[in-house]
Amino acid sequence: MQALAVGYNKGMRTLLTARLANNTESVVLIADNLKDLSTHLGNYGRSVLWVFDTNTAKLFKQLPPAHVVIESGESSKNFASLERIVATALEEGLARDGRIIGFGGGVVCDLAGFAASVYMRGCKLTLVPTTLLAMVDASLGGKTAIDYRGMKNMVGSFYPASEILISIDVLRTLSEREYLNGLGEVLKHALLSSDEALYRFLVTQKNEILSRDAQSLATIVELSLRVKQHYIEQDPTESLGIRQMLNLGHTFGHALESTFHFGLFSHGAAVAWGTCRALEAGVSLGITDRSWADGAIKLFRSYGYDIDYRIGRGDWISFRDHLFKDKKRVDGKLLFVLLEAQGTGVLKVLDTALVQHLVIAKPTF
Amino acid sequence: MQALAVGYNKGMRTLLTARLANNTESVVLIADNLKDLSTHLGNYGRSVLWVFDTNTAKLFKQLPPAHVVIESGESSKNFASLERIVATALEEGLARDGRIIGFGGGVVCDLAGFAASVYMRGCKLTLVPTTLLAMVDASLGGKTAIDYRGMKNMVGSFYPASEILISIDVLRTLSEREYLNGLGEVLKHALLSSDEALYRFLVTQKNEILSRDAQSLATIVELSLRVKQHYIEQDPTESLGIRQMLNLGHTFGHALESTFHFGLFSHGAAVAWGTCRALEAGVSLGITDRSWADGAIKLFRSYGYDIDYRIGRGDWISFRDHLFKDKKRVDGKLLFVLLEAQGTGVLKVLDTALVQHLVIAKPTF
Repeated sequence: MQALAVGYNKGMRTLLTARLANNTESVVLIADNLKDLSTHLGNYGRSVLWVFDTNTAKLFKQLPPAHVVIESGESSKNFASLERIVATALEEGLARDGRIIGFGGGVVCDLAGFAASVYMRGCKLTLVPTTLLAMVDASLGGKTAIDYRGMKNMVGSFYPASEILISIDVLRTLSEREYLNGLGEVLKHALLSSDEALYRFLVTQKNEILSRDAQSLATIVELSLRVKQHYIEQDPTESLGIRQMLNLGHTFGHALESTFHFGLFSHGAAVAWGTCRALEAGVSLGITDRSWADGAIKLFRSYGYDIDYRIGRGDWISFRDHLFKDKKRVDGKLLFVLLEAQGTGVLKVLDTALVQHLVIAKPTF
Repeated sequence: MQALAVGYNKGMRTLLTARLANNTESVVLIADNLKDLSTHLGNYGRSVLWVFDTNTAKLFKQLPPAHVVIESGESSKNFASLERIVATALEEGLARDGRIIGFGGGVVCDLAGFAASVYMRGCKLTLVPTTLLAMVDASLGGKTAIDYRGMKNMVGSFYPASEILISIDVLRTLSEREYLNGLGEVLKHALLSSDEALYRFLVTQKNEILSRDAQSLATIVELSLRVKQHYIEQDPTESLGIRQMLNLGHTFGHALESTFHFGLFSHGAAVAWGTCRALEAGVSLGITDRSWADGAIKLFRSYGYDIDYRIGRGDWISFRDHLFKDKKRVDGKLLFVLLEAQGTGVLKVLDTALVQHLVIAKPTF
């Protein structure tokens, strides 16, 4: 990579600037390809530490001198990886004005972000999300985390990246499962949007999206990020009941992921499943418009999500236990995001019996 | 401890309310004795986790049900202790709206604060500082940290405690070394104050202060905290060059502590020593008024600090290496706080030769 003297590379454009916690700003820049993006990264100079995983490290012929490569996968989101990043930063002489660059999927973004937030009480942070999930979710909004004792994101911080660099071409190399992992959050954002632009685009451009047409990819990333921006700017640290709306499908979804040890369902697929459960809960309580919910569930099904899946009766205890370990408890009660209609969410305490009814397979006799 | 229905115990009064990062507030409450303070703590209800060290745990006949007791001493400020707090919080079912109460000296405050800042991305935090150092320094201002590989406070966060509860009577049980440890920061605050109230009080009430008269203790704690408040409110995350003034004596002092593995000098004694070196540096550069510096150095000497200490020539390499690992580097240069006069600090890059000259013993031949 060659350093440029000033300014942004011509191949990159600013997608949005989100104003977040503590008067910080996250600028999202988008490029068509990794080459343009790499030129931009060359501008940072030498006081940087790169964090890759074993997949994204392969994208480089030669890794930058100061780097950490973590094993790809959720199991790397732990204290040991955090310590490795901190130790390497220290060995490389990174000061408080240095920068950590997280180059990878959600795991790398969450981990590099957490490390940057605590290294010398906070150094600079750039994220280069390389999966659709990381682009539309993990990279923007400042949530960083590691897992602990099988519980997702139990330890972390709010620490927005100053820059988020997106290269659309990397999305074309993702596996189908990984691509659908990200699309799950895109569909969720479509339901949360105050307008119908993303929802309509997902309905009308399904074939282009599933075949990963470059322009369609750029559109869903941009529209999806704008929905997220809308919620996080109003409530950067999720303390006002606004940002919580982005957790649509997540309480159900996290419990599903945890019950099957994060193996059976990808995060996005679990969120898709959980969103459909939340729609059903809303309908059964008279909160959600039935015909709108039917349309939304149909949209999820059309993208191939196994939303009709139900857990076995024997898995209920584990599922329920994971539900009640959820971070989103308030006063010991579990809050679920339900939707009244497009873009209008509410937080509701759900009866455990209703949850059980929604997630367990009906007897087949 | 008995729970009160509402409000503060009559035995406590609000000392100050500091407005800090991210629109957070730290309220400092002061009591004459631990009994009044304990009554206040009883108000918190059940969703709390207490963090003690092996010394402060002894203050209770019976420990509260949810607690962690860490070994007293700096060596507990590590990842293992952090994990123990997180694990216990999880086992006790503490949710995001739960509270961690750090009850102890600087180590407990820094550690409990760091744990609270990252547990579920931030739970509630109360600090009960039980040493003079923790009262006037660690508890207010939101700096949390653990040490890493022998480097102090390398990993941490800015996370102000919502409440800081101070009981003056615990200061009477401190060892002389521990008391002087805290007084070192009080003297430093006196030099940084925009008025001379604390400085004069330290000069005129030296005997009362050294004999730990209760009223004098309350006065130095209050005046000292007001100086700290003045700097941290203007620059909560130490990013504007204002809060840095509180690091007076610390670059010299940390290197001294590190060189002798935190054994020879207490933190406050090292800061006292470092402040005198900074005064001398300022005088030699024509920045600091000589007669004012002489008076200040005399004040430190009158409280018994070994400010005439110099390191041996053989310790210089280690001392210099620790200096250059300091977090307070900017663009690879070491910034020192120097004083022009009472309350007027400046950040200056010092020549390594000058630093060497100031800290090394002169040959005696």
